[in-house]
Amino acid sequence: MRTYLDHNATTPLRAEARAAMFAAMDVVGNPSSVHAEGRGAKGLVERARAQVAALVGCKVSQVIFTGSATEAAALAVAQKARHGGVFAALPTEHDCLRVWSEQDLPSLHDRAGHLAPDWRAALPDGLVAVSAANSETGIMLPGGQVAGSGKGHSVICDITQVAGKVPVVYEDETPSYAILSAHKLGGPKGVGALINFTAADPEPILRGGGQEMNRRSGTENLVGIAGFGAAAEAAARDVAEGRWDEVARLRDLLETTLATVSKKTIFVGKGVARLPNTSCILTEGWKGETQVMQMDLAGFAISAGSACSSGKVKASNVLRAMGYDEAQAASAIRVSLGPETTEEDVSRFADAWAAKLERHAQRAA
Amino acid sequence: MRTYLDHNATTPLRAEARAAMFAAMDVVGNPSSVHAEGRGAKGLVERARAQVAALVGCKVSQVIFTGSATEAAALAVAQKARHGGVFAALPTEHDCLRVWSEQDLPSLHDRAGHLAPDWRAALPDGLVAVSAANSETGIMLPGGQVAGSGKGHSVICDITQVAGKVPVVYEDETPSYAILSAHKLGGPKGVGALINFTAADPEPILRGGGQEMNRRSGTENLVGIAGFGAAAEAAARDVAEGRWDEVARLRDLLETTLATVSKKTIFVGKGVARLPNTSCILTEGWKGETQVMQMDLAGFAISAGSACSSGKVKASNVLRAMGYDEAQAASAIRVSLGPETTEEDVSRFADAWAAKLERHAQRAA
Repeated sequence: MRTYLDHNATTPLRAEARAAMFAAMDVVGNPSSVHAEGRGAKGLVERARAQVAALVGCKVSQVIFTGSATEAAALAVAQKARHGGVFAALPTEHDCLRVWSEQDLPSLHDRAGHLAPDWRAALPDGLVAVSAANSETGIMLPGGQVAGSGKGHSVICDITQVAGKVPVVYEDETPSYAILSAHKLGGPKGVGALINFTAADPEPILRGGGQEMNRRSGTENLVGIAGFGAAAEAAARDVAEGRWDEVARLRDLLETTLATVSKKTIFVGKGVARLPNTSCILTEGWKGETQVMQMDLAGFAISAGSACSSGKVKASNVLRAMGYDEAQAASAIRVSLGPETTEEDVSRFADAWAAKLERHAQRAA
Repeated sequence: MRTYLDHNATTPLRAEARAAMFAAMDVVGNPSSVHAEGRGAKGLVERARAQVAALVGCKVSQVIFTGSATEAAALAVAQKARHGGVFAALPTEHDCLRVWSEQDLPSLHDRAGHLAPDWRAALPDGLVAVSAANSETGIMLPGGQVAGSGKGHSVICDITQVAGKVPVVYEDETPSYAILSAHKLGGPKGVGALINFTAADPEPILRGGGQEMNRRSGTENLVGIAGFGAAAEAAARDVAEGRWDEVARLRDLLETTLATVSKKTIFVGKGVARLPNTSCILTEGWKGETQVMQMDLAGFAISAGSACSSGKVKASNVLRAMGYDEAQAASAIRVSLGPETTEEDVSRFADAWAAKLERHAQRAA
């Protein structure tokens, strides 16, 4: 029996997404074709666009489908010439944004996850990435808000982790761009979106057939986009119905239980606004990488830091930026629950973790 | 009842692809995660990579999955600094390559589709796009060969239309890069591949998590890639079994039938090596756009030129480049058959087309 507690890495496919994908598989046409088959395919894409817009709270025309949030990030960053010519990402941003950063910025958050009161003033001029929530710690901007553009700077806000978990609410200003991904909210992997809040169409990075209103060429991922739309609609409903309140209760229960077992364990961001499902559990001296492997053998899927393609787990850049030292940053795991997670799952995880910790302590002694 | 004769625009999903996609939907993990769920997902991606490599006849490590052939084209073109710094595409290339071209080249083919004998010498130095087959006319390089790199020039060969229809055979040299797409061979839309025949990994255009061995970041389109792999395997088997010989017979039957109805109609490329399924039917004075709409109403999906995202149909660039005038180039349709097309489909199409042509002639008179 396996228990999946790595929902921030990717989520199981929702039933609604699966049904929409099955239906899309029977649609024969290319959305660019003018005949009935093509128009049918186009209709599916436009329906999904409206569903994603409803989740995000933007205009339908502002949604540009991409192959991933990573591609959406690259497309947003490619617009930097229009925003002062310079791009910078906070050190706590996802690699898909951080990789393009031309400037080292300090973390907006301290070790405990408290946001610097003057954080907006600290943002540099130009195009800057400020995520709504961090994938490793779950730490959100106050109220889970989507960061808006401000004086001198245009914001790319990564809403990948908030969309479908908490209501998408904006500061007074919207950002210039937001990015998100289907597979973090019950949709399929391989489809994302750039939300373009600016008045101008972005300069495309993928060119050719002129799909997505000339903003992103390439034949549309029909099955994936249909799944994204259905997942977005279902996720928005779950949020509205408060389904994540129970997830937050289970996450808090998990932390309370583990805290009784291990006094020295730190739950990063416990005192600040966090995603309802995420626990970043730092137990100094017990490598996160080891914990992930031990818990995997015990039947639990968790992670240490972001999912990293090389299969290697490094000390978390996010925790390092927040002020933890190398050893501490290498001693964290992320447990991320989903709407299907049960109290029994959490309780079994806590038991298994406690047993592994005890063995670790014995070996270390 | 609808009859789909637009297989060069996109193909219905093969049963094998559908089955693989269903199975992939049940795989929970992120291929980048180290736990069992992640390793399971990774396994599906690697299986598909081997299946695509087998179809293309390349090493498994040379296959880089992308979100489309369009993205694969952009990735290949982005390597131009390593190949002399200049990129040029033939005027008969797909828009996803032509859009990046920095040089106007003459067509390698004349109106009848005959290849210039000295075509290789005519290629400019640098990185140059030479497709194995044209999507509108079906005209192939001799023997359906994949164009190889030569003295002074490195080739990007678009094999999107040949892969899965004819054996993939190489000239003495391989190209530097090949591009292809799943949805042209019975796989899903939204997944393609760059085949990198060079010794060096390409500089990525999508960066972040380091997926695809750091060659293309972004969480993998698991369901789509699984479908691509299964479709590639099934398509390779169909080619090996000669299933397209029957398709060619039906295509030839179609042309013979239409020729008896309309003496002035030209079948572009009829005398040269062509894809087995494609007929480019030019009837001067009868707009392709009109024909597509009339045949659509009669229950047949065909196209005029490439599928074009704007929904507008323009005079074909391909036919213009080959030497047809504007009016001629606007008077062509493409009928592209699939392995499931029947003799009855072809015969009904011919009847309907003949009836529409007669009405057109009466109106014009």
